Amino acid sequence: MTLEVNAERLQEAMREQAAIGMTVEGGLDRLTLTDADRDVRDWFEDAMLDAGLDVRVDEMGNMFGRRPGTDPHAGTVLIGSHLDSQPDGGIYDGPLGVVSALEFVRLLDDHGIETTHPVEIVNWTNEEGSRFQPAMMSSGVWAGNIPLEAAYETRDHNGDRFCDELERIGYRGDVPAEPQHEYDAALELHIEQGPFLDNEDRDVGIVTGIVGLRWGEVTFHGEANHTGTTPMHYRSDALVAATDVVTQIRRIPSTLGERTVGTTGSISVEPDSINIVPETARFTFDIRDPSDAVADEGVERVLQEVAAAAEREGVDYEYDERMNAASVTFPDRCVDAVRSAVDDLDYDGRELVSGAGHDATYMASVCDTAMVFAVSDDGKSHTPREHTSWPDCLAAANTLANAALDLAGVANPDEVDV
Amino acid sequence: MTLEVNAERLQEAMREQAAIGMTVEGGLDRLTLTDADRDVRDWFEDAMLDAGLDVRVDEMGNMFGRRPGTDPHAGTVLIGSHLDSQPDGGIYDGPLGVVSALEFVRLLDDHGIETTHPVEIVNWTNEEGSRFQPAMMSSGVWAGNIPLEAAYETRDHNGDRFCDELERIGYRGDVPAEPQHEYDAALELHIEQGPFLDNEDRDVGIVTGIVGLRWGEVTFHGEANHTGTTPMHYRSDALVAATDVVTQIRRIPSTLGERTVGTTGSISVEPDSINIVPETARFTFDIRDPSDAVADEGVERVLQEVAAAAEREGVDYEYDERMNAASVTFPDRCVDAVRSAVDDLDYDGRELVSGAGHDATYMASVCDTAMVFAVSDDGKSHTPREHTSWPDCLAAANTLANAALDLAGVANPDEVDV
Repeated sequence: MTLEVNAERLQEAMREQAAIGMTVEGGLDRLTLTDADRDVRDWFEDAMLDAGLDVRVDEMGNMFGRRPGTDPHAGTVLIGSHLDSQPDGGIYDGPLGVVSALEFVRLLDDHGIETTHPVEIVNWTNEEGSRFQPAMMSSGVWAGNIPLEAAYETRDHNGDRFCDELERIGYRGDVPAEPQHEYDAALELHIEQGPFLDNEDRDVGIVTGIVGLRWGEVTFHGEANHTGTTPMHYRSDALVAATDVVTQIRRIPSTLGERTVGTTGSISVEPDSINIVPETARFTFDIRDPSDAVADEGVERVLQEVAAAAEREGVDYEYDERMNAASVTFPDRCVDAVRSAVDDLDYDGRELVSGAGHDATYMASVCDTAMVFAVSDDGKSHTPREHTSWPDCLAAANTLANAALDLAGVANPDEVDV
Repeated sequence: MTLEVNAERLQEAMREQAAIGMTVEGGLDRLTLTDADRDVRDWFEDAMLDAGLDVRVDEMGNMFGRRPGTDPHAGTVLIGSHLDSQPDGGIYDGPLGVVSALEFVRLLDDHGIETTHPVEIVNWTNEEGSRFQPAMMSSGVWAGNIPLEAAYETRDHNGDRFCDELERIGYRGDVPAEPQHEYDAALELHIEQGPFLDNEDRDVGIVTGIVGLRWGEVTFHGEANHTGTTPMHYRSDALVAATDVVTQIRRIPSTLGERTVGTTGSISVEPDSINIVPETARFTFDIRDPSDAVADEGVERVLQEVAAAAEREGVDYEYDERMNAASVTFPDRCVDAVRSAVDDLDYDGRELVSGAGHDATYMASVCDTAMVFAVSDDGKSHTPREHTSWPDCLAAANTLANAALDLAGVANPDEVDV
């Protein structure tokens, strides 16, 4: 059997959530643990209760809605994403996955479907990491990868603590932030945030894994000098060393792999004066590849360039590893469920590896997981211009529903009205 | 006749001025128009009055001490530098020139010398430009290159206005900030702030001019994108374009001239986040050469690199010229006076062009001017480690005294006791 979502109801739910924290440009300003986040949580809780789900909120504010299965020994199928946004984000990044999960349980009711496995839908707290770092904080705590106490003590730039703000909006639950059931499988629908699907005019993405990510910070220490009186050969210019490396970070990916990316997003100098040769230059790098070996090789190449630039310019340097996240390969049975749904629905799907981290990264450390990507027009996200056409939203939601149904199992096929 | 300065008196004066605003590291924190600046001005005024000079303070706080000449038609010979410092500067940059000028008029008295030309010594306000921009502000106003009102309205980073602070320390004089006499010649003694003299073990520098200076600011506008999901060939990375140019600014001088220098001292990006491809990157450049044509060619080369980098990376850019100061070539008669003094004193002198701007830049727009450079150990300045050995201080002061005497002319050679 093939399910089709109720397009009108899905669109209405998308409109309702988008109205909470919408900006004048039609984007979303719904930072985690703000009043807007509280309001959208209230909306989501009501919707889950209306759908007859058993709602619980854990210590991290993660919101679960549970629908029982028929087999008391079957593990739960978990479906969801996040409702928080960037400060000037779009209305699809996160919410499309939560609203589609909600639509799935509504569909089960529409058709009188009982599933073998229990189904839970979830809204993870603070996926974006804009206000409190790190990103994917609460799925990380739930999966046991981030200590609860560390998360509680993080502060935003006003100095407000995560746990105080969670308490303030009324979503600091009593349930321990850890798996409360045996989980059999998990699915997350999310927008691609990249251009591959749109560029190839695909309907939907079948995500086979998440790239490995390496973050580092390099600081060069040279010598401050007068720009007018210091001959070029007397200089130890920290910024020249740094920029030599940044230009190489643009080129290194092309020597490694088709999907390798390398970026410097942040750079600064001291004393930062037009007529003083920089004494200190600091920059970050971000290297990603579906293969951890290739990502490691990328870091190695960057550090070779750092050493060569330091030698050339006569400066010292320090290197700090800032993050090392292993790649994730989703297991065949979950990817197959998504692929089968795409085939059954006769969509033009494309397999791809996610270049961004998602809550699915942490779900995958608890149970078998996969993801569905909705098309991102022009690859844009984290901007009010983020857009997924309505047919593309439907394609992704239909794919999620059928893949989830596959994983949850229909216990009463003869009674179902599809 | 050859004068020799009173080494003990010169050293005592250096010690007295250095004690006002001295830092724990033995450097100087005597920003313009601070209480420390007021205190050193009080000290200098007393010293000038003790030396029998006719003291006047102009609207910019420039302090002049005048000693009459015998010829009522002879133009004045002006000698001096500045007493203000960088926030964490050294004790020689500026004060050595003022104290040596004071020592010169004391020497004239010691030896009963009457000069044909009147002699004036001067302390220029706000040479450093650390607190109020631009540098060399008050010699610039005096010479008619900077409008008085613009200078008065400049504010420090606390928002305090130049004219209010000048008033507060009691040095807003009544005399118009413009030449009050006909000036025949000017001399400034200053530390080199570069390594040439020290590197060649010279005694003193004969400055033949000041390099031409070009300051510019370039801003690239690319597109902010997710570092993980945006393939390399989809990017318009503003920082990559900027760093391509900065690395070329390191190389361009070597294609132009022996004394050409090029520097990027300041760089910044937006949104400045480790996982966002930079949308905007801004950097400055500083190009100098003794030849204005070469300096202009340097700017041209930088702008060619800017255009090429923008094309390569698919970004837009803006260019703002921040300063364009023509080179100064000191006239032969003043340079000859310095060279003759060096020869008479049997010093090992070296001709060189100043890589830094000085108050002499503006004095040279009013009358024939030259400079004497004292050795800077290791070329260091604007740091407490700035140092000129005592023999090198003496060599420079002796050179200044004899060059000044040459320009001022001895009216009573038969009565002089040398």
